[in-house]
Amino acid sequence: MTSAVEGISPRPTPTMRASVLVKAGEVVMQQRPTPTPAADEVLVRVTAVGVCGSDVHFYKDGHLGDWTLDGPLVLGHESGGVIVAVGAHVSPTRIGQRVSVEPQHPSTQSAESLRGDYNLDPAMKFYAIPGTDGAFQEYVTIQSHFAHEIPDAVSDWAAALLEPLSVAVASARKACITAGDRVLITGAGPVGLALAQVARASGAAEIIVTDISEGRRASALKFGATSVLDPSADASAIASLNADSFIDASGAAPAVWSGIEALRPGGRAVLVGMGQSTLPLPVGRIQSHELILTGVFRYANTWPAAIALAATGQVDLDAMVTGTFTLEQAQDALESTADPATIKSIVEPHRV
Amino acid sequence: MTSAVEGISPRPTPTMRASVLVKAGEVVMQQRPTPTPAADEVLVRVTAVGVCGSDVHFYKDGHLGDWTLDGPLVLGHESGGVIVAVGAHVSPTRIGQRVSVEPQHPSTQSAESLRGDYNLDPAMKFYAIPGTDGAFQEYVTIQSHFAHEIPDAVSDWAAALLEPLSVAVASARKACITAGDRVLITGAGPVGLALAQVARASGAAEIIVTDISEGRRASALKFGATSVLDPSADASAIASLNADSFIDASGAAPAVWSGIEALRPGGRAVLVGMGQSTLPLPVGRIQSHELILTGVFRYANTWPAAIALAATGQVDLDAMVTGTFTLEQAQDALESTADPATIKSIVEPHRV
Amino acid sequence: MTSAVEGISPRPTPTMRASVLVKAGEVVMQQRPTPTPAADEVLVRVTAVGVCGSDVHFYKDGHLGDWTLDGPLVLGHESGGVIVAVGAHVSPTRIGQRVSVEPQHPSTQSAESLRGDYNLDPAMKFYAIPGTDGAFQEYVTIQSHFAHEIPDAVSDWAAALLEPLSVAVASARKACITAGDRVLITGAGPVGLALAQVARASGAAEIIVTDISEGRRASALKFGATSVLDPSADASAIASLNADSFIDASGAAPAVWSGIEALRPGGRAVLVGMGQSTLPLPVGRIQSHELILTGVFRYANTWPAAIALAATGQVDLDAMVTGTFTLEQAQDALESTADPATIKSIVEPHRV
Amino acid sequence: MTSAVEGISPRPTPTMRASVLVKAGEVVMQQRPTPTPAADEVLVRVTAVGVCGSDVHFYKDGHLGDWTLDGPLVLGHESGGVIVAVGAHVSPTRIGQRVSVEPQHPSTQSAESLRGDYNLDPAMKFYAIPGTDGAFQEYVTIQSHFAHEIPDAVSDWAAALLEPLSVAVASARKACITAGDRVLITGAGPVGLALAQVARASGAAEIIVTDISEGRRASALKFGATSVLDPSADASAIASLNADSFIDASGAAPAVWSGIEALRPGGRAVLVGMGQSTLPLPVGRIQSHELILTGVFRYANTWPAAIALAATGQVDLDAMVTGTFTLEQAQDALESTADPATIKSIVEPHRV
Repeated sequence: MTSAVEGISPRPTPTMRASVLVKAGEVVMQQRPTPTPAADEVLVRVTAVGVCGSDVHFYKDGHLGDWTLDGPLVLGHESGGVIVAVGAHVSPTRIGQRVSVEPQHPSTQSAESLRGDYNLDPAMKFYAIPGTDGAFQEYVTIQSHFAHEIPDAVSDWAAALLEPLSVAVASARKACITAGDRVLITGAGPVGLALAQVARASGAAEIIVTDISEGRRASALKFGATSVLDPSADASAIASLNADSFIDASGAAPAVWSGIEALRPGGRAVLVGMGQSTLPLPVGRIQSHELILTGVFRYANTWPAAIALAATGQVDLDAMVTGTFTLEQAQDALESTADPATIKSIVEPHRV
Repeated sequence: MTSAVEGISPRPTPTMRASVLVKAGEVVMQQRPTPTPAADEVLVRVTAVGVCGSDVHFYKDGHLGDWTLDGPLVLGHESGGVIVAVGAHVSPTRIGQRVSVEPQHPSTQSAESLRGDYNLDPAMKFYAIPGTDGAFQEYVTIQSHFAHEIPDAVSDWAAALLEPLSVAVASARKACITAGDRVLITGAGPVGLALAQVARASGAAEIIVTDISEGRRASALKFGATSVLDPSADASAIASLNADSFIDASGAAPAVWSGIEALRPGGRAVLVGMGQSTLPLPVGRIQSHELILTGVFRYANTWPAAIALAATGQVDLDAMVTGTFTLEQAQDALESTADPATIKSIVEPHRV
Repeated sequence: MTSAVEGISPRPTPTMRASVLVKAGEVVMQQRPTPTPAADEVLVRVTAVGVCGSDVHFYKDGHLGDWTLDGPLVLGHESGGVIVAVGAHVSPTRIGQRVSVEPQHPSTQSAESLRGDYNLDPAMKFYAIPGTDGAFQEYVTIQSHFAHEIPDAVSDWAAALLEPLSVAVASARKACITAGDRVLITGAGPVGLALAQVARASGAAEIIVTDISEGRRASALKFGATSVLDPSADASAIASLNADSFIDASGAAPAVWSGIEALRPGGRAVLVGMGQSTLPLPVGRIQSHELILTGVFRYANTWPAAIALAATGQVDLDAMVTGTFTLEQAQDALESTADPATIKSIVEPHRV
Repeated sequence: MTSAVEGISPRPTPTMRASVLVKAGEVVMQQRPTPTPAADEVLVRVTAVGVCGSDVHFYKDGHLGDWTLDGPLVLGHESGGVIVAVGAHVSPTRIGQRVSVEPQHPSTQSAESLRGDYNLDPAMKFYAIPGTDGAFQEYVTIQSHFAHEIPDAVSDWAAALLEPLSVAVASARKACITAGDRVLITGAGPVGLALAQVARASGAAEIIVTDISEGRRASALKFGATSVLDPSADASAIASLNADSFIDASGAAPAVWSGIEALRPGGRAVLVGMGQSTLPLPVGRIQSHELILTGVFRYANTWPAAIALAATGQVDLDAMVTGTFTLEQAQDALESTADPATIKSIVEPHRV
């Protein structure tokens, strides 16, 4: 499951294989020039890439929220690998390092970046968002400081899954989870499960996870949930939780509503799951209980914490992997997410 | 306009006049026993009481949000006066003090009170909420620490209006207004105008106030707004404000929506105005911009700041008074709020 | 080790045995009237009391910080037991509940209490501080909301030790420990060990504990430390830690200095251990690194979290108990703290 | 006093005059090549430069804190001017803009910069710190986003003095000054006076400024102080202030001590003034009152707020200027700070 780099890093080949989404529903293999790292970048030989729900949206629908596929796009933004080349301003000693890729490239000059919210930078380039290719290919480039070195205790799969773990870390921070808290998480997909683990690692004493799928509820109990509830059958139990914080990882309107109802006075609601752009919300309750509602958009400054959580075993990412695929099987990997038994599918671009 | 107490405080009479809302639309004068302060309370001879929109709701509709009139109720929760008697555990030296009344009586043992959010205490008793009479009467009782001593620089009217000012202070704190900020306030009623003043006092550099009424927009410019906008005519200007924070003091659904749209990434929306209990909100934007949305329910720990702001002249409350009424004219005072020229009406229970 | 209440709670006896510190170094047994709970209080039959370093200070020196023994004093402020009687305003259904005692009685009217910092209330009465007797006696009274009900999973010993755990919880909050952090704790006494556990439960990835005693360092490794360092031998390793936060649980001047030096830019130093009232501090470094230094004085709003941490097993308090004593052996219990092998001594007032 | 740019911006000359500190006490004029802006930089024709105490330290002593003069150095880090050329990646439309210079060049890749604390970046290059020349010369280069455009309402002098104002803004933020606060400021030099103004603009109701100089105390009353105190004569008045926050702008050990003593429970102390690297501090009080102590090192993300405060007139910077000098008189400007009547001396490099 894990594979520390042994011996000499292979030299990058001049061209590489890439799995390209040419239009909604159609993924093809292409041979492309291997990218050259810019002065502040490194070239990473991709070992593993996770499949995310947003990849599936582009694959199935050709769009995601406000973004629309406008040409061929390489999907995949959860990736790790080995540095095989560096730009002019990067120390060559980094070659050979195993890294996890933080797949964003913000401007450093915006007000957002300067105050530490670089994920909100308006000029952001992000893997697998139209305009910027992702990691379903043999090699990727990334700014050197966003190629985070990982210790041996973090497997190749985990290196890729530090990305969804980062979403969970960012969400737990927004929810201000502290020791002894009661936390409600709606949705037991990969982010919900990562969240349950982060909540547990953050000292939450009660972690209630809801999901409409019995199988996913069962998974949640393996990944940190102290109890699970069925949104339909247990609606009144959810409403009376009096939770310190609530994080939606489902994007489902009823889940968001019920979670807000479940909060104690002064409690916090964090919306992570992407769903409808407009939702009716119980603003009367937000006012009378002085609830705090916010959202999470990716992450900033989360990799060090995510690496630590994975390296110490406080969070188990490998156990979330339910299937692996070659680059040629990328379309199968995308389709695999429809199987309710799938938690996380991994593409391994160099596996043959 | 101001009237420091001269000479001896008058002794309370055994009975007192009270203006009682007996049912929606019907206010009558009654002679009632003057209340006796409990051990930790003081008896306040009421000098001035402001008329609030929530009083008008009970008067016109017989209910306010989830509360319904279930018997005779004395309205009025914005009040100040002079301490004329004290309970067994209160120092008699307080007799004669001019005070502003913080009209709440929370339990001190709830989790909410213990952590400083006593306004959220579930067992709260609050002036002019069914079950607890308000201040449209000659005398009121209040726990001694909620009878806040005021300096001479705070007039009798201002003593009463420290209550809406406290709402504004609480809102500014939730909005985290700091020096140099751009703040949007929707609604130029009494709370909106107090907010504009508090925002100015807090260092906001740009204070944009919107209101559908031209007269109220004109008022806003006198009370701290640096510019005013018409929600209909200036919709696109509002949407492009890129404000650091937004406070709704209107309760109007379009105002809440437009205010959220007007925020910069990471900006804060604070809902003060009471309106519909459910509103459609742009959650997609809340997520992608990591906006923070919360509400204000009354106030906690605001009187010291409100007194300081009024005493130093950083906020002018007297200028917000547009009409005064005797206790017998309380119904006129309630009706006066329908006049667009009214900002704040004051009832003076001892004026004849 | 644990003992859920079985059957009927025993009725309190009219008089009780008390272990009284009559002057520094002299502890005597006295028969005293069993206290009567005030209206908002409960009477607790004390099952277990922990011995704290502050008890030892009064016992050995006759003073603690600014407090001086000015008459007979019952020591002990870490206690739990069973409610056997209630005051007039407390529900009799509480009789029979196993509880942990939060040993403070603040005024509810001070600015400090009103904003949630009731531990800083200037009129505080606190167990075993001159003027207020502690828990080295068969029964104690406490306000009902400070008699915190505990579940079966919390043993009698743990009920008492929720007090030092609360100090640790308060410290972890001040240090803002979050998932993935590197935390330095100086001093491996009971508070340091509780802190290491709370840090671990809060997601800290690295918990470095220092102590001059090899035995205590060995204990630290059992209670959550990921590594231990010797302040003398490992000074340079400590200085280069680049820790996110530092908590001093030693009160030793060199530990405080070294901990501040060990912080990353923007890191937090929290002083818990009581030592000299004045210390030289590296203010140049505090400035150039914008470090944040604060102190912890007891706790507020910590019991719910502490109970949750103990009940879920995230923190193990029972394992910290190294000796138990009868009430008659209270002086032995106080003396036992001089033994380096002692972590926590427990007095059981009703054991014979 | 103010001078908006009229007509065409002058083209930069190939060489320029620079006032160079060649060793402690010796300032000479040199002709140097005009610097060329890097791709992300602009070239600014310097209109005004403020003289700071740190410039005087290098001039008098040859060092400042841990920095030592190791070769010729151009002093001056408080500057404003007009953009006259831009680097390859900067829009030429910026040429002609009046700007205030934020005189720092951090790496964008450090953990500190990424989380918004770019002032704490370990690889920082800062004007007039050995290794990087300052602004006592005709032209300077700066990264384009640190050349902050200013409106006409901000004069040339004020453009330069936005730098010390930024220190004040950063300090007020660390002190969490909010409406109604009581703030103690020790030291009425330029930063202390800017602080008093920012505190006032932030809604502080009481701003107590202390200084050993009667003249400086008189100045403080003109710049926002609501009262002034003499550290010697008024020691007990200072100690009993019960201030919400305290900011030291003196660097004097007794001021720091007295300020900490003056805080209310939970109050905040912010150290801005540079003094001894080690100070004895009342840690017992920091603990028992849970005070929060921190320091300010320059600033991050302050210019927008500082510009707004100056542009709206909430802070008056021009009134702080007590003398102006040509570039050839730079040494006189440095010497002028010894005159107690000096608040702020300005060098105007292009004035003849």
